[in-house]
Amino acid sequence: MKRVAVIGVGQTTYGLYPERTLKSLFADAAKAAFADVEKGIDPGDIDEAFIGTLSTGGSQLGNFAPLMLESAGMAGVSGRHVENACASSGYAFRDACRAVASGSARIAVAGGIEKMSDLPRERNRSWLGVSGDVEWERLAGTNFPGIYAMMARRHMHEFATTKAQITGVAVKNRDHAVANPKAQFRKSMTLDKALAAPNLAAPFCLADACGITDGASMVILCDFDIARDFTDRPVEVVGSGGGSDYVAIHDRPSITRLPAARKAAREAYEEAGIGPGDIDLAEVHDCFTIAEILAYADLGFCEEAEAGHWVEEGVTRLGGEKPVNVSGGLIGKGHPIGATGTGQIYELANQLRGRADEPSRQVANARYGLAHNVGGSGGSVAVHILKAVE
Amino acid sequence: MKRVAVIGVGQTTYGLYPERTLKSLFADAAKAAFADVEKGIDPGDIDEAFIGTLSTGGSQLGNFAPLMLESAGMAGVSGRHVENACASSGYAFRDACRAVASGSARIAVAGGIEKMSDLPRERNRSWLGVSGDVEWERLAGTNFPGIYAMMARRHMHEFATTKAQITGVAVKNRDHAVANPKAQFRKSMTLDKALAAPNLAAPFCLADACGITDGASMVILCDFDIARDFTDRPVEVVGSGGGSDYVAIHDRPSITRLPAARKAAREAYEEAGIGPGDIDLAEVHDCFTIAEILAYADLGFCEEAEAGHWVEEGVTRLGGEKPVNVSGGLIGKGHPIGATGTGQIYELANQLRGRADEPSRQVANARYGLAHNVGGSGGSVAVHILKAVE
Repeated sequence: MKRVAVIGVGQTTYGLYPERTLKSLFADAAKAAFADVEKGIDPGDIDEAFIGTLSTGGSQLGNFAPLMLESAGMAGVSGRHVENACASSGYAFRDACRAVASGSARIAVAGGIEKMSDLPRERNRSWLGVSGDVEWERLAGTNFPGIYAMMARRHMHEFATTKAQITGVAVKNRDHAVANPKAQFRKSMTLDKALAAPNLAAPFCLADACGITDGASMVILCDFDIARDFTDRPVEVVGSGGGSDYVAIHDRPSITRLPAARKAAREAYEEAGIGPGDIDLAEVHDCFTIAEILAYADLGFCEEAEAGHWVEEGVTRLGGEKPVNVSGGLIGKGHPIGATGTGQIYELANQLRGRADEPSRQVANARYGLAHNVGGSGGSVAVHILKAVE
Repeated sequence: MKRVAVIGVGQTTYGLYPERTLKSLFADAAKAAFADVEKGIDPGDIDEAFIGTLSTGGSQLGNFAPLMLESAGMAGVSGRHVENACASSGYAFRDACRAVASGSARIAVAGGIEKMSDLPRERNRSWLGVSGDVEWERLAGTNFPGIYAMMARRHMHEFATTKAQITGVAVKNRDHAVANPKAQFRKSMTLDKALAAPNLAAPFCLADACGITDGASMVILCDFDIARDFTDRPVEVVGSGGGSDYVAIHDRPSITRLPAARKAAREAYEEAGIGPGDIDLAEVHDCFTIAEILAYADLGFCEEAEAGHWVEEGVTRLGGEKPVNVSGGLIGKGHPIGATGTGQIYELANQLRGRADEPSRQVANARYGLAHNVGGSGGSVAVHILKAVE
């Protein structure tokens, strides 16, 4: 099994681009990733490509990957579209790592894209539900705000977690996003104002949810042994874990934990030979505020009952003991579904190279970074651990 | 890079099952694959799963793989949905091979499924076009019969290929399907009758196209070194190749060859260390008759100008020098889009173990088998070479 390195990363600024095409958005992310490889690389050098998306733009149902590849100067490259709901590009990254680790690809790319602004707001609401169990959840009228609200209610009941602690995740992540030029929501929000936002699905108000976002991201990976031919600062992928679960949450023994995340984290830590205490920063899947609180325990950072307090005490703020979502996360940076997984890798790679786009938001001396990417309400989860290389 | 073995294969009988659910169809294929592992295997032993489909049943847009996995006793397994139009499960198989080759998965499954009967015939016609370039082909009114008809016309013009040679592919493959209990169209058809079928898109008549099919297939792979713990007759995967192309055929320099297939074949032969002459049988992607004729040359079996004569002379019939699509192919066995790639592996594995379901259709002394799986009109292609193991 070969060691795998990330040698270049690119991401569009997340936002709403109703006038842009899918092809041009993806091409922008790819161009940025190629430009990030300091010693130069040619799109023709790519052996294998993995493109994550949920909706395929609604229309290009088949052969989505070749279409993105031709738009980005990679026509001909062996590629495929990978779908795991909101964890689509987390899995694209996982499979790209394997292609390189197996030795069959020297250089691979993993990317993702989503253009949610193609649909009116109401259609997005209904469309997103099709990553839950359509027969048993979506057709019964449940959608993701409702599903995660149930998880939040149960967490409040079992662990005395407060609404202020939960919504505190949004306040933190919006604060982080202010300094991120690639983020969609760059305006901070006080806890009072967040708590006073209109109701979404109790206990959630609008501030507890991520928004509607367009965006794309792409990362370039290669055999670690040749990484320095392309860059002086590669980042090593030292751990990859994956898990799935029953898609409908009523089939799970508990709704305050995601077994798929716990399995994925266990595998990633084991492969990396480290534990949760070694992680210097994490990008976790805060599609709703409660999801980040669940992640703290699922990733082994703390116990379930401590998670709410961690938010309150600022443990996971930039400058805190365990910074989480310094990019702004899904709530602050934005959540263009298929792009999120490799967008997390974009942030980690930059941080681990000491190259956060704004010095003010650089995590000092970060050695290990973790990405946690969740599909739907935990039907699929990918966890990756990246390591800074001297 | 570890060696990879196929240790079990399963496939539903292809046909029309409007009353069946996607979950139950996939579960049937999985159950058959598990039962095929003679020394026994537990679904809980699976480390990684790759599920190919184009349509995701229309409704389960996200988290499709976890849903299929839970239906087949594999809840929890790290899985993802792979899409490359009609080459979806050919690519699922490619990625499953890599997961095992890298050493990160000991045992993996690759499968595929499609349920086309959920849509009325007219909707299928329009829906299938979305694997072409939607903006430049589909929205301009072109669909796959039209696209492949243009390829056929050009082949007739350049190489003096005749309509009787082209339609002869359908006659051969329908003949082959008669003996295949898993095939959908088990009725032979004379060339005269085939040529007299109603017009589809000139030069094609209805006999030149595959039909509307429901079905699922799944194969189980593992590290070659442990294969004999599960079966006395493993089959080795000795070559895997992949390629993509411009999705719209007007962007390609020639429409009588698929560069993606040529690239994929070259890679697969190179990895296997053999050439086209060593292949004892092939399952190729005959979505339309002309596609099989293109495949003969793309795979290096013969020159483009010879391909039509090969059909006429019976070279690719069971008992001929180079048997192609002894299962019946997509035209005779059926083409449940996402299931076709691993369905081809199902046939090859059985043939290479000397276990064709009917002795009459066993290819004698087959050592190397090749699978050629095409997405759309060649936007993506996967080629695999399997080898019999003593």
